Amino acid sequence: MEKSILSIQSHVSHGFVGNRAATFPLQILGWDVDVVNTVNFANHSGYRRRAGDGTKSTGEQLEVIFNGMNQNGLLEPSRLLTGYIPNGGCGAAVLNLARDLRGKTENLIYLLDPVLGDNGALYVAADMIPLYRALLSTATIITPNWFELETLVGFQLDSLSALRKALEMLHTEYRVPHVVISSLPITKQRATWLPTSLTSLSKPLTEGITWAEEGLLCIASSRLDSSSTSEVYTMAIPQIKGYFSGVGDLFSAMVLGHYYPEDRSTNPLARAVCNAVRTTHAILRKTAIASARVPGASRDGYTDDELDAADVDRRPRRMKARELRLIGSIDIISTAGKSALKEDDGFEQMQPWRDFWTG
Amino acid sequence: MEKSILSIQSHVSHGFVGNRAATFPLQILGWDVDVVNTVNFANHSGYRRRAGDGTKSTGEQLEVIFNGMNQNGLLEPSRLLTGYIPNGGCGAAVLNLARDLRGKTENLIYLLDPVLGDNGALYVAADMIPLYRALLSTATIITPNWFELETLVGFQLDSLSALRKALEMLHTEYRVPHVVISSLPITKQRATWLPTSLTSLSKPLTEGITWAEEGLLCIASSRLDSSSTSEVYTMAIPQIKGYFSGVGDLFSAMVLGHYYPEDRSTNPLARAVCNAVRTTHAILRKTAIASARVPGASRDGYTDDELDAADVDRRPRRMKARELRLIGSIDIISTAGKSALKEDDGFEQMQPWRDFWTG
Repeated sequence: MEKSILSIQSHVSHGFVGNRAATFPLQILGWDVDVVNTVNFANHSGYRRRAGDGTKSTGEQLEVIFNGMNQNGLLEPSRLLTGYIPNGGCGAAVLNLARDLRGKTENLIYLLDPVLGDNGALYVAADMIPLYRALLSTATIITPNWFELETLVGFQLDSLSALRKALEMLHTEYRVPHVVISSLPITKQRATWLPTSLTSLSKPLTEGITWAEEGLLCIASSRLDSSSTSEVYTMAIPQIKGYFSGVGDLFSAMVLGHYYPEDRSTNPLARAVCNAVRTTHAILRKTAIASARVPGASRDGYTDDELDAADVDRRPRRMKARELRLIGSIDIISTAGKSALKEDDGFEQMQPWRDFWTG
Repeated sequence: MEKSILSIQSHVSHGFVGNRAATFPLQILGWDVDVVNTVNFANHSGYRRRAGDGTKSTGEQLEVIFNGMNQNGLLEPSRLLTGYIPNGGCGAAVLNLARDLRGKTENLIYLLDPVLGDNGALYVAADMIPLYRALLSTATIITPNWFELETLVGFQLDSLSALRKALEMLHTEYRVPHVVISSLPITKQRATWLPTSLTSLSKPLTEGITWAEEGLLCIASSRLDSSSTSEVYTMAIPQIKGYFSGVGDLFSAMVLGHYYPEDRSTNPLARAVCNAVRTTHAILRKTAIASARVPGASRDGYTDDELDAADVDRRPRRMKARELRLIGSIDIISTAGKSALKEDDGFEQMQPWRDFWTG
């Protein structure tokens, strides 16, 4: 198998989001990554202070790149990965490309990360929502967070039946074979309808990390056969306090990089997601520990926003301190996080959620 | 020491030239590389066939990125690496940046690869020549090939005294502390004035490679003290037949990545250049062997141009087959090529050229 991925995401000169979070780890795993940049910025938007807007690609500019590659026989990836798409023009170019590749490449594996927003807020224009819905039918795997999933299906995930309805809609109406809900906060309300085994979290034996109260649920749902319901796997993940950028981009890249459908010794999606969770969590723990050492990074009892308001230089300093520590992490990446874990950390595998559809 | 490099070079979506050749290997070596792209193309120019021109950055666009980084405290690299600069506007922006960083960062190490052309032909506009001359005084290390060196100094390297004069001009007039001539073909004419030890080449014990008749001389010249002449080191390198893109970009990145001036156990520049030669040569051998396996890649007795003319699809196929095999080469890169060498291959170290200035 030729290990080639065409990755279409954002570029930042400093730090690790978009293609900068995806490329290096995939290259470590032996993937030959072709990199198309949808935007060209100095740094991610969390820094807030910007000298200008950098450059967002237009749809025409993306098409020039795709056509240039195609003319030279370079547009034949075995896999496609798409992330942040800045505008409808780029979205249309990506949709055309995804349809073309789906038509000409048998067994194309396309991981679509529908980057729409997080924590209840959209960070793309509203016209990207129908565009992502149109992209869904070309995808092999999608990796929405809970907010993106709610946005795509159009209703809130406030009950187990709503969660069932959302997965059913994606698998059946939008014909997505594999759905990964990357992070569903285990709120007190949700904890009442989740199996107890999912809400009792074991935290990795790592010193120097402040944990959030809520854990996160990761769900992998594979519909291997159109005549039956999907196989659902889950994993509860302890959540590190504070916001870190690029986590979803790294996670999605690692799901794709570890996905080997031909190996059916275990559920291929659940195996890939487990490897992606372990890798991402190990990088995050390393990042959290390193960032906590930066002077003035945290003061108990104050929120980041309060501390940022008192010191205008704090926010960029905090953002820089929280950039993912991908560099120097070849071992973590190449072992899918195992090099950074102790045996009893509870990240060994995802659990089948056997009565998801019937319970 | 914070291992940070700001790298300003070209971006291609497929293949490995410019930043795409420099970033991954430097990241493997543990360098946190900030990446500013001077152009955004589908592939390198050797493919010839292009759907459009892609996008070249303007000077203003580069300044937006630099200013954006600066406002967020992200423009404080310990090292700077520059390669292909597409136009005078970008050149002026890079010159301003290099002067600013030189002024504010004590001990800034700036490796300037004066990308002007190769094999006797310019591939930048002529107005880049004075711009590169202006950049020279801000550089710590420069890595011209023989053609770029001739272009910068304005005369041909047709005698040992011309070579001496060129190095003297760069060290004294342009005040460049460290000059690396990456590749000087050992022509029959030059072989008459080079020491015999440099012209008797041992070739690595690698099967499946076609060697060119001429070897290449690599020269590292460090002027550590303004009151004396430089220390000159050399290494003769067997040349692999055929043209491979991105070799100079990889070489320059590896010189910078392996340069540790504080370690004076051996000449720091000679050690870095030796590591860069070994890494680059090992990647090239791997690439040459892999590309020779591509069907129709070569036919004895015909030149590439003749074969390309008979089959319009051959050139892009050949270019693709000759992309540097950086992926899957973590061992080669992290051991500076030692993992791919046998003990008697003659790549152990550079030789001091003791009578260079007096002989």
